[in-house]
Amino acid sequence: MFFKVKTSEKVLKILEGFDSVGEENSSIDDALGRVISRDIPSPENLPGFYRSSVDGYAVKAEDTFGATESLPALLDVSAEVTMGETPAVACASGKAVKIPTGGMLPEGADGVVMLEYCHELDKKTLEVTRAISPLENVIRPDDDFKQGGIVFEKGCSMRPQDLGLLAGLGIIDVQVYKRPRVAIISTGDEIIPIDKKPVAGQVRDINSHTLGAFCRYAGAIPITLGLCKDDFTQLRDKVVQGLDMADTVWISGGSSVGTRDLTLKVCESFQEMELLVHGISISPGKPTIIARIGSRAVFGLPGHAVSTIVIAQVFLKPFISRLSGRNDSRAVSCYHTNAELSRNIESANGRDDYIRVRLEHKGDKIIADPIFGKSGLISTLVEAHGLVRVDRNTEGLYQGQVVRVILFAPL
Amino acid sequence: MFFKVKTSEKVLKILEGFDSVGEENSSIDDALGRVISRDIPSPENLPGFYRSSVDGYAVKAEDTFGATESLPALLDVSAEVTMGETPAVACASGKAVKIPTGGMLPEGADGVVMLEYCHELDKKTLEVTRAISPLENVIRPDDDFKQGGIVFEKGCSMRPQDLGLLAGLGIIDVQVYKRPRVAIISTGDEIIPIDKKPVAGQVRDINSHTLGAFCRYAGAIPITLGLCKDDFTQLRDKVVQGLDMADTVWISGGSSVGTRDLTLKVCESFQEMELLVHGISISPGKPTIIARIGSRAVFGLPGHAVSTIVIAQVFLKPFISRLSGRNDSRAVSCYHTNAELSRNIESANGRDDYIRVRLEHKGDKIIADPIFGKSGLISTLVEAHGLVRVDRNTEGLYQGQVVRVILFAPL
Repeated sequence: MFFKVKTSEKVLKILEGFDSVGEENSSIDDALGRVISRDIPSPENLPGFYRSSVDGYAVKAEDTFGATESLPALLDVSAEVTMGETPAVACASGKAVKIPTGGMLPEGADGVVMLEYCHELDKKTLEVTRAISPLENVIRPDDDFKQGGIVFEKGCSMRPQDLGLLAGLGIIDVQVYKRPRVAIISTGDEIIPIDKKPVAGQVRDINSHTLGAFCRYAGAIPITLGLCKDDFTQLRDKVVQGLDMADTVWISGGSSVGTRDLTLKVCESFQEMELLVHGISISPGKPTIIARIGSRAVFGLPGHAVSTIVIAQVFLKPFISRLSGRNDSRAVSCYHTNAELSRNIESANGRDDYIRVRLEHKGDKIIADPIFGKSGLISTLVEAHGLVRVDRNTEGLYQGQVVRVILFAPL
Repeated sequence: MFFKVKTSEKVLKILEGFDSVGEENSSIDDALGRVISRDIPSPENLPGFYRSSVDGYAVKAEDTFGATESLPALLDVSAEVTMGETPAVACASGKAVKIPTGGMLPEGADGVVMLEYCHELDKKTLEVTRAISPLENVIRPDDDFKQGGIVFEKGCSMRPQDLGLLAGLGIIDVQVYKRPRVAIISTGDEIIPIDKKPVAGQVRDINSHTLGAFCRYAGAIPITLGLCKDDFTQLRDKVVQGLDMADTVWISGGSSVGTRDLTLKVCESFQEMELLVHGISISPGKPTIIARIGSRAVFGLPGHAVSTIVIAQVFLKPFISRLSGRNDSRAVSCYHTNAELSRNIESANGRDDYIRVRLEHKGDKIIADPIFGKSGLISTLVEAHGLVRVDRNTEGLYQGQVVRVILFAPL
């Protein structure tokens, strides 16, 4: 079978072909960052009653018309509204009822005069020095939400205030998408566990830990299947185990041609397999393989720590979002920011270059400073805040140009 | 005692007077988002040996000097480097040793020629069509990290790649600051638990759930102490309980003057108490109280959902960072972005206004669109991506102006 390297747009499109994982129920207190799997209609009006938004006096607005400092309106003070209770008295014409912020409007009242425009001349007489219009300083019963209206659409991700709104509506649990499970396998004869001392030529297993943390950051559950030698049977067994336990399998390693070929051979040994991607026109990260085995995506990721993070940010994060059912129409910008380049970046033709950048706030500008250095060095990633893509169809980017930055996990 | 409202700068300064909580040990696999509590020196060089960064042939660089396509260098091919092993052969003058990416350089070799510039004429003879300089395509033993160098300073927050680096260095656990514990109390006679049906005038407890999720988002542990009536003894008991169980106490409620006074009275009833803040010159959120009781900060937060979120973003997030020991010199921009205002915003003099905004990417611009609407409505927060501050010393902000946006939790 002949395979051309694919563009990143094409790869992202291919990854959209995978379905979200199943649903489960979650208490709203455990739902931070989780994705709603069904539209949520409002079970009732919120706040459900006419409510004052200030401390003041509930009145009939027309009783204040024309009132000014020099010509105040005079009203009779009757009882006070108590928080959390239906007011005992109604507000007849010419009357004023003291009301706290959040208090329920007494019957008859249609507005609230703020405390600072009211002076009690005596226990029974109130001077009002400013006119209000009807419904001024009043929250109506369905101002926040109307019964039956959709509060959140399926695919929305829950932030603290979103959960607060659900609490306000009396919704104590929600249907959410399960967190996708990701089986992580680290291959390579040179890779050793991190608690072992390497002898010459060996390196510790960086990628299992990087990818595990990345899964958690992206909202997935990592299942670390450990190390695997460059051996067909051993790798195939691990992949079988991964397909059984997880929603997707990520094989890290294969920085050398030999391991890469092995990953490919293992994928090809499965019956229901389709090779979707064999190389991506990006740098770093070109030798990435993606296969569909049954309904699951199996990724063969390059072994370099830097390539791994680039592929994770550019492809695996959107892929996890896809599996998580995330489709929030509100989602913008939190994963990207704009910045001004501090210097020119040249680009090789024919591939998208992902450049690590350090960000800096300068006045009202955000500056992106490219970090150069040998691509295999994980230290360059530790200094970086994100990635800038240099498109394969450009000759490079210029100093002072505004670029989109793909942000790493926040610091 | 006479108290003036304080500026937000002053309040932030006051909050810096609180110390970080204690330390604990964490496995690196549990350390995502945690803050390192001690400088970490590198226990060894990384990668620890001369390593090839490409697939190719290890050579003495001088043997390739002058080599071009028309005048290639001819070298003798000897054995191959195996991943994870010390090369069996040395690279003498005139020799080339095949080497995979990540392989250890054989003794004598000082550079690697990429595969694409090499052609094996026969099993024994290699044609090299490009000259390399010494150390080309080679990672040196301490290129990534030098033994004894500081890998992370105390105060750094751990991202996936940071944990990957620790894994690479064989560091399997780290000292981190404990997550601060936050006691949350919701006061107000009108507040009912979220699983109860409100009768007229009552509202469900939005803030315990909003603040609880906010704590988790900010890296703290919420301890929800539940509802409390506007009653001195009951509130004081809860505060005592909170001071005992947690590192800080957040009392939500007090949107009405009565509750506010009660919170103040309860704080004042403690012996070792200092009233630090009684009102902040911001909107919304002005009636915020901060007291120091012993070594702990007690916050009296306004009850409105919107005020709560504003205070949380502007003050409680930096405060949690402070308690968490977070002091990462790398930390920029992840919590802020810059955007262009879609319209004018007027401002009242004498206070900082925090305006909710919706963000939108338009070409290479990020646009911030102010969300107006009654300040008590939580629905306005659900549409918003962040807050823009209109400084008290300006008359407002103008359409097209670039503003700093304080970002909410990501979607």
